[in-house]
This record gives sequence, C-alpha cells and structure tokens, in this order.
Amino acid sequence: MRIMVLGGDGYLGWPTAMYFSGRGHDVLVVDNFARRQADAELDTDSLIPIGTLEERLRAWQEVSGRQIHAAVGDLTDFDFISQEIWEFQPDAIVHYGEQRSAPYSMIDRDHAVYTQVNNISGTLNILYALAERLPDCHLVKLGTMGEYGTPNIDIEEGFIEIEHNGRRDLLPFPKQPGSFYHLSKVHDSHNLHFACKVWDLRATDLNQGVVYGVETDETKLDDRLATRFDYDGVWGTALNRFCIQSALGAPLTVYGSGGQTRGFLDIRDTLACVELAAMNPPAPGEYRVFNQFTEQFTVLELAERMQEAARELGMDAVIEHLDNPRVEQEEHYYNAKHTRLLDLGLQPHYLSETLMGSLLVKAKQYAHRARMDTLMPWVNWRSTSTSRPIGRPAHLAVER
Amino acid sequence: MRIMVLGGDGYLGWPTAMYFSGRGHDVLVVDNFARRQADAELDTDSLIPIGTLEERLRAWQEVSGRQIHAAVGDLTDFDFISQEIWEFQPDAIVHYGEQRSAPYSMIDRDHAVYTQVNNISGTLNILYALAERLPDCHLVKLGTMGEYGTPNIDIEEGFIEIEHNGRRDLLPFPKQPGSFYHLSKVHDSHNLHFACKVWDLRATDLNQGVVYGVETDETKLDDRLATRFDYDGVWGTALNRFCIQSALGAPLTVYGSGGQTRGFLDIRDTLACVELAAMNPPAPGEYRVFNQFTEQFTVLELAERMQEAARELGMDAVIEHLDNPRVEQEEHYYNAKHTRLLDLGLQPHYLSETLMGSLLVKAKQYAHRARMDTLMPWVNWRSTSTSRPIGRPAHLAVER
Repeated sequence: MRIMVLGGDGYLGWPTAMYFSGRGHDVLVVDNFARRQADAELDTDSLIPIGTLEERLRAWQEVSGRQIHAAVGDLTDFDFISQEIWEFQPDAIVHYGEQRSAPYSMIDRDHAVYTQVNNISGTLNILYALAERLPDCHLVKLGTMGEYGTPNIDIEEGFIEIEHNGRRDLLPFPKQPGSFYHLSKVHDSHNLHFACKVWDLRATDLNQGVVYGVETDETKLDDRLATRFDYDGVWGTALNRFCIQSALGAPLTVYGSGGQTRGFLDIRDTLACVELAAMNPPAPGEYRVFNQFTEQFTVLELAERMQEAARELGMDAVIEHLDNPRVEQEEHYYNAKHTRLLDLGLQPHYLSETLMGSLLVKAKQYAHRARMDTLMPWVNWRSTSTSRPIGRPAHLAVER
Repeated sequence: MRIMVLGGDGYLGWPTAMYFSGRGHDVLVVDNFARRQADAELDTDSLIPIGTLEERLRAWQEVSGRQIHAAVGDLTDFDFISQEIWEFQPDAIVHYGEQRSAPYSMIDRDHAVYTQVNNISGTLNILYALAERLPDCHLVKLGTMGEYGTPNIDIEEGFIEIEHNGRRDLLPFPKQPGSFYHLSKVHDSHNLHFACKVWDLRATDLNQGVVYGVETDETKLDDRLATRFDYDGVWGTALNRFCIQSALGAPLTVYGSGGQTRGFLDIRDTLACVELAAMNPPAPGEYRVFNQFTEQFTVLELAERMQEAARELGMDAVIEHLDNPRVEQEEHYYNAKHTRLLDLGLQPHYLSETLMGSLLVKAKQYAHRARMDTLMPWVNWRSTSTSRPIGRPAHLAVER
C-alpha cells in the first residue's frame, strides 16, 4: 500500500512511517517542522536526542535498506497538500499533522486561535483534496479520548444509541472537551463526519488515549532512529514526566488529587492500531470512530506504579500533589469502551513493570540532558494569558 | 443598558440595534461590511433598497431623536474588538457577526475555510476579550437550529438527559449540522461552553430557526431604516424566495420533495427573543441554550401557504420541485422543543396570511428590482467547487 504520514516527523508520526516502511509499504512523510519550531519557541527539547528528518531518512535507508520519501510543507497550504496527494496517490493517509498539546493551546489567545485555525483548516484542506482528487483514499485521522470529557455514563465509540421520549436514534456521542486543543479535535470530528456524508469519503477517527513509551521494533534498531521523549510541562504526558522525575530523584508531580481517570496505551499499540485501521478501511461514505487505548488508570495510580517500578530499581520516588493547573473533574466516573480495535485483532501491550523499568533506565541514561526548569506546569487554564517563565521557576510564570 | 450589536449592519443586526435604541438603551453597532462585500462578490442585492450604515444612523437620529454609535472593524482583529469592548463597557453583546449562509460556505474550499476560520476566530476573540477585560458582560450569541440536524428523537434546548447502561447525565445535545456554515456554529457552541466553564463567563446561545419578514416597529418608521430582503439562491431563505416568485408570477421552487421540516419565526420575534435573553442574563459561568423559533413547517407547507396567500390577492402561483442541491433528509421526524423563551414571556407572532399578504405587497412594490437570474440555487453540496453562473441560468453553473 501507499501510506502518507502527515506529521511524519513527530513523536508518533516518525515511528509510524518506519513501521509501515518496514512492512513493505511505500511511505511518504509530510511535515512542516512545527513541533521542532515550538521547541525553539518554548525552549523545550526531547530528552532523547533526535536527528533531523534528513538524518532519520538516511539512517533508515542504511539500516533497513528501504526508502521513506518526504515532502516538507504546511497542510494549511492547499496547493501543496493537494499536489502531494495527487502525485503520491496514497491508499491511506495517516493524519497526525496537528498542534497536539492541550497546555500549548491554553497559553494565550494567539496559541488558542493558532491551534484551532491550524488544525481545522489543515484538515479541511485534506478533505477537499481527497474529495476533488482521490475520494477512494482512506483518511485515518488522529482524534483524542479527551473529546469526550468525563461524562457520568459509559463512553461509547463515537456514537451512542439514545432513547428519548419513546423514540430512538444512533447519534454522535456528546462531547465535553477540556481545552482549545481538545476542542479543535471535536471540530475536526464534526467536519469529517459531514465530509464523509456529502462526498462519500471514507474516514476513521482514532480517539486515542495518552500514549507512553518511546521504543518500537524500528526505533530500537539504531539510536539515529529514536523518537521524541517529551517530559516538560507543555509537551510531556504524565508517565514520561514521572519517569524523568524518578530518574532524577525528584518528586512525582500529580495535578490535584490525581483521581482523574484516562485511557492509556503503549506506543507500539498506537502503530498496531493505525495499521489495523488502514488495513481494514470503512466503506465509501462511512465515518467511523475507534477508541484507541488499552487500559484505564487514574493519574495517581500511574504515579504509584512508577513509584513501585523505581523502588524495584533501588530508587526512591515520592509523590507530590500540585495545584491543578487545568479545569477538570478530579473524582469522576469513567468507563470508556474500546472493543472495536480488539475486534480487528489488536494484541495489547499492557503497562508492565518491565516497560516502566526500561523507560526508567532510558531516562537515567539521558538524565544529564534533562531540563528540570521545564518540568513544572506553567500554563494555567483559568488565566487567559501566561508568559513562559524564562530563567525562573515555573510557579513564577507571569499572568499577563 | 449598554448593548453592543456585532454585525449590526446586517439583516437582523440593524433592526436589533434600532429596537434596543428605541427602548432607551445605549447601542454600539460593530460591523466590517462583509455582507455588503459578499453582495458585490456574488452580484446579489437586497430586493428592498437599503442605505449605507451612515445613512441609516443619520436617519435613525432624525426619526427617533436617538443616537446609535458605530465602530467599523473586523472581529478577527483582536486589538480592535478588545478595545471597543473595553471602551464601550457593554452589559450585553448581541453577536450576529458571522458568515451566515449555508450555500455560501459550500461554494468551494476557500469559502468553507473562510466561513469556519472567520466565525471561530472572531468568536474566540470575543471570548478572550471578555475574559480579560469584562467577564461579567453577557454574550448573547446567535446559533442555529441547523446545528441539531434532523435526529429521530425530540430535540431539546442544548442539553439532553441521557440514561445509558443504568447511569444518567445531562449532556450536550448531539449535533449533526448540514453545511460548513452550520458546522462553524457547532464549533462555536463547544468553544462557548468551554469558555464559560474555565473563565466563569456568561453566555446565551440562541439556536435560531429560519427568520422571515422585514418589518419591525422601527423599520416601518422610514424607508431609510429598511432592512435587507434577501431572496437569491445564496442569501435568501425559503419564504422570501417564495414571496418574490409569487409576486413575479414565477413558480415557487421547492428543493426536493419539500418534506424537510424546520423551525421558523417572525423577525419581530427575533428582536423580542434577543431582548428577553439580554434582560435575563445567566449566572456567571453559565452557558445556556434557547431554541429560538415559534412554529415548525415543512418547506412544502410553507410554499402551499404562500400559494394560498397569493391566491387571496388574485395571484396564481404554481409549485415546482427542483433537484435538491443540498444533502439532507427530505422525510424525517422533527419535534424541537422551544419553551424557554416562552417561559421568559415571548408573545409569538405566528405566520399569518396577513403577514404573507403584506410581504407579497412589499415584494410587488419592489419587483422591478428583482434579479431572477440570482434566484436559482447554484451551489451544490455534492460538488467541492462551483463557479457562480455569470450571464447564464443557474443550472449552467460550472462544477470546477
């Protein structure tokens, strides 16, 4: 198959590109380096060093004997992406090409508007390009479990059968997203659903949980093939943060009580899920939604499991509760369905002490690169505008 | 009260501004003339001649002795709107300032992206300006009944109590909008709901039905105070189109079978609803939704009632069914609740033969200005790109 990976230089995009290439597919990576630019903007960096896209492509060819192609450009540039789609003729487009950090979207007005305009118009451009030039191509779009929020009922996969006043219908599951980033994904979902209906496109919306881990069969082949390990307050996710904190003997920082429950999955399962979606396309006109995660934990449970794993390795980690910078429920019901990918054959890698141990070892290996000053959350949901703390601790971030 | 009317030069904005001014409120109109610009773009025009904003303001002062203030600028210009809000210190902002035509949003990619980016970023700017400078101000935002689509269950006002697997929650009503314009309103609704939650803003989302009529107590005072009468294939709504068709002895064009049911209301009720919302603000942090219409009809019923009214005036109108340019259900269940505004005291003006008769007389009066070549729908939902027919009938519009 011909697989186009949008955002193919990112945390998940790059491993996805290698994964498909390694299985004999033709892969074209598209990226505008927005993620690298944002590192420069926020003075953040991957814990594990990563090469440039060119270095990665060369290393991959050397190691695997296969070539991944790349096109550098912006999805908001319609002529660019439309032409790339036309020339490459992908069977499936895996679309990671969006601003993907909730805190980044909540920094201030500029970042909120950028996140929504960038994500929505980039995705609209892809929908138009497909409808005009390649309507049979399958769009595999990354959404997020955060679109649902934390309703007091079971979360279904995209749609819910509602009985109301004696009548029934299968309707889009109500969304209660918790940041301007999560909102942008909800907007995308509605746009996708509509485009499939009016233009007979086929799309899979992967509402993904929080991903952990950095090792896949391909990244392990060579240090030059590594993917990002983000741990800072804007780009890092909870498990990665706990990991570097354990490695450095710093307290594991839990936001609020830590009772927030979320869906999680191993990076290797992300790749398997995307492959399962791509290999089993929906019918023309069908917009389908898979909830893409394998386990639910509270954030506090996650911290405690990391504490346990650290103890096994002779490290002593304490847990510290921070004022929650987000506006979210900290104690709530959470039960999200996730059977559709299992039905397609997903074999989950559940979170194990072994995995956490190996992540810890990795973190220790690169601990000298860790920037402790970037670890604390400095973006506050309740403030409309916060300046990044430069040369001072995060709790001194200035509300403008 | 100090009332800011965004889009205050438009079809509903201008009558709203006069309505509040006539009742002794301080009114500031904000407009960027996008609607007038679009008339130039599409070679469309109001059937009833309208003055420039300056002429309207002068005429209003002459006729009523009251002054309406105006600021010309774009809501996507944050510095502009933030400054205007700060200087005027409105108690309520009535927000009509969005691209509001479904066909316009479906012309092609440019118009779709423009509609969503313009509407979303303009509204985000207002939310940020309020949060930063005037959090107690009440945002009265125009949404649309089209956000709900046509589900097979009763439509509630914004939220629905769902029981699922033995648990219950009150959740946002699922949305199934039918154009990129309607989608932009759904996106706004989600953004509004979130902003109220994190910043304690107060907002009322008025999910309005299809408005008919052009006469209010204020527009009737002087010809120079008239509001737009749109009847063409892009800006006109069904009743106005039927009206000019009857006046000219042309067939009343119903899209498809005409079984599409929608909520409708008289322009005078729009003003009363907006006033009721403004005078009864929600609590800080509350995002509430009112369904703003007074009656449900199918499009065919509307055409038949117009036919009847025309017959009373000695005119003979035939009904013609066109291929439906939209993608929508033509036979469906429809029962939308609309009690919240009635509970606040709304006294509806139901659609009467008298009203239709007077609209018909009005249409006849200006029939010499009617541009029959703009009447037919030329934007096709199934096509990603249509060129406006220039100097040829609409059915010869070119799919690019």
